Amino acid sequence: MKFRSLISLLLCAGISLADEGMWTFDNLPLTQLAEKYGWTPDQEWLDRVRLASVKFPGGSGAFVSANGLVLTNHHIARGAITRVSPKDRDLVKDGFVADSREHEIKIPNYELRVLMTTRNVTDLVNIVAEPDMAPQETNIARKDKLEQIRAVMASSDANMAFDSVTLYNGGEYWIYGYKKFSDVRLVAAPELQAADFGGSQDNYTYPRWGLDFALLRVYENDKSYCPEHFLPWTKDRLKADELVIVSGHPGATFRQQTLAQMEFARDFTIPVRMRFQERQKAAIEEYSKTNTDAARLAREAIWGIDNGYKRISGQLSGLKTPANITKVAAEESALRAKVAADPALRARVGESWEQIKNAIEVHKQLLNPIQMLDGRGSALLGAANNLARWAYESSLPPDKRPDVSDESLNTRKDALKRQQNVDIGLDTTRLRAGLQEAIDILGSQHAIVKTLTNGKTPAQAAKDLLENTKFNSEDFRKQLLEGGNVAVEASKDPLIVMARSIEAQARPYRKQLNEQVTAVISEHSQRIAGARFAIQGKTNYPDATNTLRFTFGPVATYPANGTLMQPFTTFHGLLDRYEGWGGNEANAEGGVWTLPQRWLDRLPNVNLATPYNFVYACDTVGGNSGSPVINTKGEVVGVNFDSNMEGQAGYYVYDGNTKRSIAVDARAITEALVKVMDGKWVADELLGITD
Amino acid sequence: MKFRSLISLLLCAGISLADEGMWTFDNLPLTQLAEKYGWTPDQEWLDRVRLASVKFPGGSGAFVSANGLVLTNHHIARGAITRVSPKDRDLVKDGFVADSREHEIKIPNYELRVLMTTRNVTDLVNIVAEPDMAPQETNIARKDKLEQIRAVMASSDANMAFDSVTLYNGGEYWIYGYKKFSDVRLVAAPELQAADFGGSQDNYTYPRWGLDFALLRVYENDKSYCPEHFLPWTKDRLKADELVIVSGHPGATFRQQTLAQMEFARDFTIPVRMRFQERQKAAIEEYSKTNTDAARLAREAIWGIDNGYKRISGQLSGLKTPANITKVAAEESALRAKVAADPALRARVGESWEQIKNAIEVHKQLLNPIQMLDGRGSALLGAANNLARWAYESSLPPDKRPDVSDESLNTRKDALKRQQNVDIGLDTTRLRAGLQEAIDILGSQHAIVKTLTNGKTPAQAAKDLLENTKFNSEDFRKQLLEGGNVAVEASKDPLIVMARSIEAQARPYRKQLNEQVTAVISEHSQRIAGARFAIQGKTNYPDATNTLRFTFGPVATYPANGTLMQPFTTFHGLLDRYEGWGGNEANAEGGVWTLPQRWLDRLPNVNLATPYNFVYACDTVGGNSGSPVINTKGEVVGVNFDSNMEGQAGYYVYDGNTKRSIAVDARAITEALVKVMDGKWVADELLGITD
Repeated sequence: MKFRSLISLLLCAGISLADEGMWTFDNLPLTQLAEKYGWTPDQEWLDRVRLASVKFPGGSGAFVSANGLVLTNHHIARGAITRVSPKDRDLVKDGFVADSREHEIKIPNYELRVLMTTRNVTDLVNIVAEPDMAPQETNIARKDKLEQIRAVMASSDANMAFDSVTLYNGGEYWIYGYKKFSDVRLVAAPELQAADFGGSQDNYTYPRWGLDFALLRVYENDKSYCPEHFLPWTKDRLKADELVIVSGHPGATFRQQTLAQMEFARDFTIPVRMRFQERQKAAIEEYSKTNTDAARLAREAIWGIDNGYKRISGQLSGLKTPANITKVAAEESALRAKVAADPALRARVGESWEQIKNAIEVHKQLLNPIQMLDGRGSALLGAANNLARWAYESSLPPDKRPDVSDESLNTRKDALKRQQNVDIGLDTTRLRAGLQEAIDILGSQHAIVKTLTNGKTPAQAAKDLLENTKFNSEDFRKQLLEGGNVAVEASKDPLIVMARSIEAQARPYRKQLNEQVTAVISEHSQRIAGARFAIQGKTNYPDATNTLRFTFGPVATYPANGTLMQPFTTFHGLLDRYEGWGGNEANAEGGVWTLPQRWLDRLPNVNLATPYNFVYACDTVGGNSGSPVINTKGEVVGVNFDSNMEGQAGYYVYDGNTKRSIAVDARAITEALVKVMDGKWVADELLGITD
Repeated sequence: MKFRSLISLLLCAGISLADEGMWTFDNLPLTQLAEKYGWTPDQEWLDRVRLASVKFPGGSGAFVSANGLVLTNHHIARGAITRVSPKDRDLVKDGFVADSREHEIKIPNYELRVLMTTRNVTDLVNIVAEPDMAPQETNIARKDKLEQIRAVMASSDANMAFDSVTLYNGGEYWIYGYKKFSDVRLVAAPELQAADFGGSQDNYTYPRWGLDFALLRVYENDKSYCPEHFLPWTKDRLKADELVIVSGHPGATFRQQTLAQMEFARDFTIPVRMRFQERQKAAIEEYSKTNTDAARLAREAIWGIDNGYKRISGQLSGLKTPANITKVAAEESALRAKVAADPALRARVGESWEQIKNAIEVHKQLLNPIQMLDGRGSALLGAANNLARWAYESSLPPDKRPDVSDESLNTRKDALKRQQNVDIGLDTTRLRAGLQEAIDILGSQHAIVKTLTNGKTPAQAAKDLLENTKFNSEDFRKQLLEGGNVAVEASKDPLIVMARSIEAQARPYRKQLNEQVTAVISEHSQRIAGARFAIQGKTNYPDATNTLRFTFGPVATYPANGTLMQPFTTFHGLLDRYEGWGGNEANAEGGVWTLPQRWLDRLPNVNLATPYNFVYACDTVGGNSGSPVINTKGEVVGVNFDSNMEGQAGYYVYDGNTKRSIAVDARAITEALVKVMDGKWVADELLGITD
């Protein structure tokens, strides 16, 4: 009975429960907003927020002053801050505030974008579909047409960038036009240890005390840019339960996957990744005991592993939550019933769920072998594999490599150019653990294992490969890259020989995966998406596509750790977590909860009750980092920088009871700028006291 | 392979891993202490700690000054503080510090005890066992002999109390002699909202900011008592990883239960309790929406439920942790193998595990019916059931009620005397939910359900019973109690009529439970305990028995909520949690995170970096509340007041990775006494500045 009423509810309301949804600005749930919060933004409000939103490489941001100040996260701007650091000063570690506008530092090769125009070209694209085309042919024709339209628009204006955007998995096609800004300068950033207080230990968790912000300024013609729209800094006191809006660029979600795909992630792909990471971590912990240098390297490696592990554990835990699976199953049942009841849809889509399920059965067989043909934890073997694959694929004429685009070849080559030298001790440890895993999972008689170990113990095999290779030298890597396939084929370096064997073994698996799994799932996912769009239209939001979205919800507690999480944290809590770990003196857990000396000196001047971070029930994912958090007046109340572990399930399914986004409170930014960072003039500009 | 080596480890070391164990002072793991911490307490240290430890009604405490100051928890002394509150002042709410020693307030009918002598009387007791006695007869003879010895000792000294103590489930028999103190006066206690900051929301959780302490003073002959031994207040800075010791009175643990018993708790008894509490809570939440009074009553009721629910959820989660079950299974396998290898043990104990398993199978059948014959959430029906049972049982001559002692009849009668009037609206709501549960679980045709509902809807049945009874009147209850079985049998009050029917239905179930479950498990648990003691002797610690124990471990972080918990909290964090919930103004969640005005006024004078609470890996359970936490110098560093949710599994099995005890830091107590509570003279006495 309950099940049936849930289905009805889902069908009536689209599938958006609670404040779920990453909505496009052309299709906002205004009725829902009005009913639940008694608030309806007018067009001017929406235009201002949209045009003040800024797209960063890998994240989001917003104009926050009349003179082109842009707010984002420290972790989004971190690469840029590294690049502008002079030789003798580490601006990431030490922080930076320009002492005047003249001393803002230009960031080389850095581009920000603002979405100026969006054009729905669905009809123009769909016109190319002829009734007698096979589905795959139609898809290719549409893709070509979309690119054609985009190219025409792009050629019309060199100052703009035009991207094609596919929404609702093919339900709609759009061209998005961005204004490009390539003169971007660093204005202010706190010390890494303030921005990233708690490090990867506290990442994805709350309560939290991260001052994860940076301020940049956009210039045009060497003058600060005056944007038509910006979001003013709030002077109000944000409170618990208050509605906030996030405008940003969520990267990718998989909420339209079938139940079978989510179960496959839950029972296979995620556990397989966790198994690998658990074994790698155990090996690295052993290695860390050998000496102090090893301990430092190990700590960094473990932080990296823990970070990813925490994210996928959150996803796994969400996929294991019965209510989430019930929700997915109910939506799928309802959709399948509608499809079954419509002869045209049934003919095209009726078998798609079964086809995907069958493809997953094939994938299950391929999962472990393909995993064992990766770098097995060794960064160097991983790079060598990449080289072998690049060399082989780039030696083929384009028509002999239909699945490999020139772009993907270039991406692979660029990664190889950027490859750094590694610590051979740590890399050997990781490879040993990776080889042991291959033996334990595939058995010592498996062809892949024989290739990898050549009958040796994992320790000996790893040692022989990594201690005798020249691949840990930049020059050697450069020679091979320049020599291309001929040089790679001719190399007698043991690691390159191994990489060639691995590449040869991987090729048939990859072919089978492409043909029997990826292509089938891609085709039938599109068919299901088409059916969903035909039935629901735009009552629902599209999966995230790294394009501008609007999401909303209240500042809100949630249950965790046996109690309720407080909506806000304060500077007091920063000192509690600092002192509670024994301070800089104790340097506990690698120093993740230490504070810069300047902070300790100046915190006595700070109003410690100032809110620092807060949690709110908005539907964000990766890509939303740096997004402005906005009140209903359209003012900045914070900057989004993370979401909790419980919320990681949101890549697959939204659970409003526990998914929370985490922001730096706007008040913490100005308080820190004034009282700690010598940045009063920047705070004054934010607060509109000066231009 | 791993499994086998774990078994060997368990057999070699007893079963104590990590810092597990609640050790008796006569049998301390000194080798383990020396090996792990390089520290061995000498006899003087041990005597001092033992003789400074104080037993409270329901908890623990310690002498902490030369003039008889005793430290315990606020929640242990709370009943006493309530009793000494004058009519016009609520000392629980407002806190209290005597302005001088003369104004300390005497607590009526309050007794503290100090363990002065312990005597091992195992040989004297065991001598009564004759070879031809049946096991049950032996047990009765031993019990009688133990009581005989205790009575002789008790008659020798009226100022002392003597208790018989059975350790290792019958492996050893002891008489413990306590010095009694009946002139106990209240010296200092903070406001409830400081002691219990976070209420039942934060109970069993960490990080935590509870100032859960009270100071009493013992008097003899109207003069403050000078104990031979007390624990001085530390002047050192307690640090992370430092070894601490807890000396206190853990109440009861079930760590010697068989695997089948723990699985039964995990799969049946705990889930059945949780189901009941979930349904009760849902009903009360509905009720809370009816009006403001209902909301207040509901909140209190829900807090009570949440508190218990959280504890048993922690137990359940621990019992579901594979490593814990593996540990129990390994210990049991090892013990069973030893028993099987010894003909005498095998003959006596070989079948005991199977016998217990069979008894549990019977219990599974009885669990739901017996549960449905309780008060079904109604306090009034529960009391009426108690009355009907007491009336019936006390009407029988002693030889007709072998399982019912005079003591248990008196306990039942005392509870009835203390019964308070209830809110009929809330009680009816709870009964309705309880009756609905009976229908859902047993089905509407079950005899018990027919008795309970008489064919009516749950709502109607609850209303008819509770709105028409006179049992919510103290006079009426008194009449029935005085009238005994004759009055109860004659009553036509609908609630009493129902209680008689329930009692009549319950009797055969109770008989079956006693004979086929409780007696069998009791007998065979003792046999298993005997075998374990025969094999292991005192290499292990006995289950908790509400007697003095020594437990130790380091101040230590643990993993929770996706990160690591900080070893200490500070006054800063108190303010963070206060401000983070919006302060007194917001009064969030019923005000559990508000602070008394005096605190807000005076916190600016406090050194906010002072440690407030801390976590440590000692093996404590309920009964340890108020225990002194001691450094290796024998100084007080804190007072134990709680353990985390993860640690609740410790009633069954110890998991050193996540079980943590929680203490108020000694430095927070003196800082609060001086800077907030107007109690400088008390702090001076604690710090040894004055006598």
